[in-house]
Amino acid sequence: MSDSPIKTPPLAKKGNGPFSDAERDSLYRVIHSRRDIRHFQSQPIPPEVLARILEAAHAAPSVGFMQPWNFIVIESREIRQQIKASFDAVNAREKEKAAKVGREDLYGSFRLEGILDSPVNVAITCDPSRNEDFILGRDPMPQTADYSVCLAIQNLWLAARVEGIGVGWVSILDQEAVEQILDLPKGIKLVAYLCIGYPVEFRPKPMLEELGWKKRTGLETLIFKDKWGTSPS
Amino acid sequence: MSDSPIKTPPLAKKGNGPFSDAERDSLYRVIHSRRDIRHFQSQPIPPEVLARILEAAHAAPSVGFMQPWNFIVIESREIRQQIKASFDAVNAREKEKAAKVGREDLYGSFRLEGILDSPVNVAITCDPSRNEDFILGRDPMPQTADYSVCLAIQNLWLAARVEGIGVGWVSILDQEAVEQILDLPKGIKLVAYLCIGYPVEFRPKPMLEELGWKKRTGLETLIFKDKWGTSPS
Repeated sequence: MSDSPIKTPPLAKKGNGPFSDAERDSLYRVIHSRRDIRHFQSQPIPPEVLARILEAAHAAPSVGFMQPWNFIVIESREIRQQIKASFDAVNAREKEKAAKVGREDLYGSFRLEGILDSPVNVAITCDPSRNEDFILGRDPMPQTADYSVCLAIQNLWLAARVEGIGVGWVSILDQEAVEQILDLPKGIKLVAYLCIGYPVEFRPKPMLEELGWKKRTGLETLIFKDKWGTSPS
Repeated sequence: MSDSPIKTPPLAKKGNGPFSDAERDSLYRVIHSRRDIRHFQSQPIPPEVLARILEAAHAAPSVGFMQPWNFIVIESREIRQQIKASFDAVNAREKEKAAKVGREDLYGSFRLEGILDSPVNVAITCDPSRNEDFILGRDPMPQTADYSVCLAIQNLWLAARVEGIGVGWVSILDQEAVEQILDLPKGIKLVAYLCIGYPVEFRPKPMLEELGWKKRTGLETLIFKDKWGTSPS
């Protein structure tokens, strides 16, 4: 990456016209075949591909158009080893919790991160103020700054999928420790720590569904009409 | 909708194979042409289209595969009028804040919601526990439950765009008031209140950029290498 610094890429933007049925079906295939990846190949991501993926993230909506995100692209092995140490410590505590509900064996069988195996990690942060006195629409629900960053992350995740690249979100971390490792200034918050690279494979189902940790909920049970609890039918 | 209740639709899932360059470019066009919409046509959304959009949301990743989202599909004019009243009250206060930074005229010129004009509103909520004692990966960063809901929202937003449907996120609301109007049980949190329908148009740029409220930040200024503040080049 030091040879080819990330630049805003010249994206082919074909305008605002309608999408064909084939394009619609293709988007749904991207959405439904996206996975949380933990097994990576080591080959690097071409800089122009990473640039397209980050550009997709940056095209996300944000409250008051504040664009509160930053992207820390981490290749340093030393920094990743520090992050991995945080994961290991926190994961040991989580495994104890799994034992209390009798699921430590299944929990222990899961691969839950690819911090050192993936070619690149990306930490995504939120600056909740961007040094502005007034951000349109944020104050009534201040959490919308963080939420905007998450919308960017899903754009990134889908863009990666269509490029054949996998993303794994590592939440089993000590947030404060990671913020220190990455030198985040006071007030800047870590939202997500992602491992990114070409996956060994894209499986047909989420790992936790495939390996029997948890079932997919029927969508029809999650939809209400007009108020909480009222069935639409 | 009462004639055709939402059911999980039989989605064409063409498997996990690679995507063509045309499919890749098409995803980027969806991402870059998605807008926050506030001017809607009144025509209803066909139930099967709304079902596909909600199915896309439900395909989002979630921490521990907890799927913490619910979707309240609001057509009732009475409920929407109550929500609109909350918007009006909060917006009046926000306009006063805009005046303090000398931007009340521009602020006042913006259309900031389409609660009554859009054919349907969708409130999306987060249940942070789903009645489980242990959710894999959530405890170290409990906010990842809310974040998962946001990932679902971006899926919904992009699915709507490819269907030619607009989405507007209304954050200028009294969250507690809206949670009461919608009868949310204790512990269930409103994450987003969306207006959904066919838009009058998809504009080439975000409204706040087009109308001079705020510029788009250069992506290159938002990317760091290995640690906060270190330029990648």
